[in-house]
Amino acid sequence: MLSTQLKELIGTYPDFPKQGIVFRDLLPVFAHPKLYSELINAMASHQMFEEADAIVAIDARGFLLASSLALKTLKPMVVARKPGKLPGTLLSESYDLEYGNNSLSIQKDAIKKYEKLVIVDDLLATGGTVKCVSNILESAGKTITGLSVVIELSQLNGKAKLNFPISHQLTY
Amino acid sequence: MLSTQLKELIGTYPDFPKQGIVFRDLLPVFAHPKLYSELINAMASHQMFEEADAIVAIDARGFLLASSLALKTLKPMVVARKPGKLPGTLLSESYDLEYGNNSLSIQKDAIKKYEKLVIVDDLLATGGTVKCVSNILESAGKTITGLSVVIELSQLNGKAKLNFPISHQLTY
Repeated sequence: MLSTQLKELIGTYPDFPKQGIVFRDLLPVFAHPKLYSELINAMASHQMFEEADAIVAIDARGFLLASSLALKTLKPMVVARKPGKLPGTLLSESYDLEYGNNSLSIQKDAIKKYEKLVIVDDLLATGGTVKCVSNILESAGKTITGLSVVIELSQLNGKAKLNFPISHQLTY
Repeated sequence: MLSTQLKELIGTYPDFPKQGIVFRDLLPVFAHPKLYSELINAMASHQMFEEADAIVAIDARGFLLASSLALKTLKPMVVARKPGKLPGTLLSESYDLEYGNNSLSIQKDAIKKYEKLVIVDDLLATGGTVKCVSNILESAGKTITGLSVVIELSQLNGKAKLNFPISHQLTY
């Protein structure tokens, strides 16, 4: 089963990047091409991709999944990035995350053609990052078809913040 | 021609992220699935991928290309990331870049199985970032089969720093 194979590879690092956080390291999955390919197929098969006009990739681990999902589904991809990384006119919002706080921006012109977007990240923790992206999109009048992640940290209850479908491949 | 189509989409932002830098924005290419797919095919067709045991993706725009190249070529992918982002035992080195300086790390265990690696990024400027990654890999006894980028900024002569083949799709 995909989730079992993923769990065998995902690393667990207590107290990283700071005390009290248990970090789940998905990177070993990308070193197993067959499993990685199965993972992308599983994520892409959810109807939230079919319903979307475009994919929003969250900086930076979301990039590792979203670009392959864009190639697989042939949907356009846009990015949500941290401050100072994107040129042009930006739509921005700040957020609190599991450790610290940050802000994210999307290029205004990048999303103007699309009505419905699916958000991609590696992991759903408190939901702060995703909520920030969905706020940017909803403020611009967009509809979110869903959030696709590999891992959901269910104890942090991030889904309570989000008013759209969530597709995950495994939970901790 | 691929390079002409790419140039029509790539944005140009003078004085971003700081005075004197001309920023080339590749992101619009990812919003054109057919062209993006052709780009990945063109990059993947170079023998530096066939010769490599694995792909090294440079944080963060390199992720957008490398993960699709990993899916396309079915080669394992590992990442080179900025400080504080990677758990576990790291191989690290600092570098000067076009604007400022930084350091990059690779997880030691992530590359132990591979002898030959191909490096992927979006753009070759002064070559500082790539040289940092190649130094980490060479210090660990690895061979670099090449660097694959979309854009080479030829006036900055980054290739003079690098002792392996470079594949680019277009130059400025």
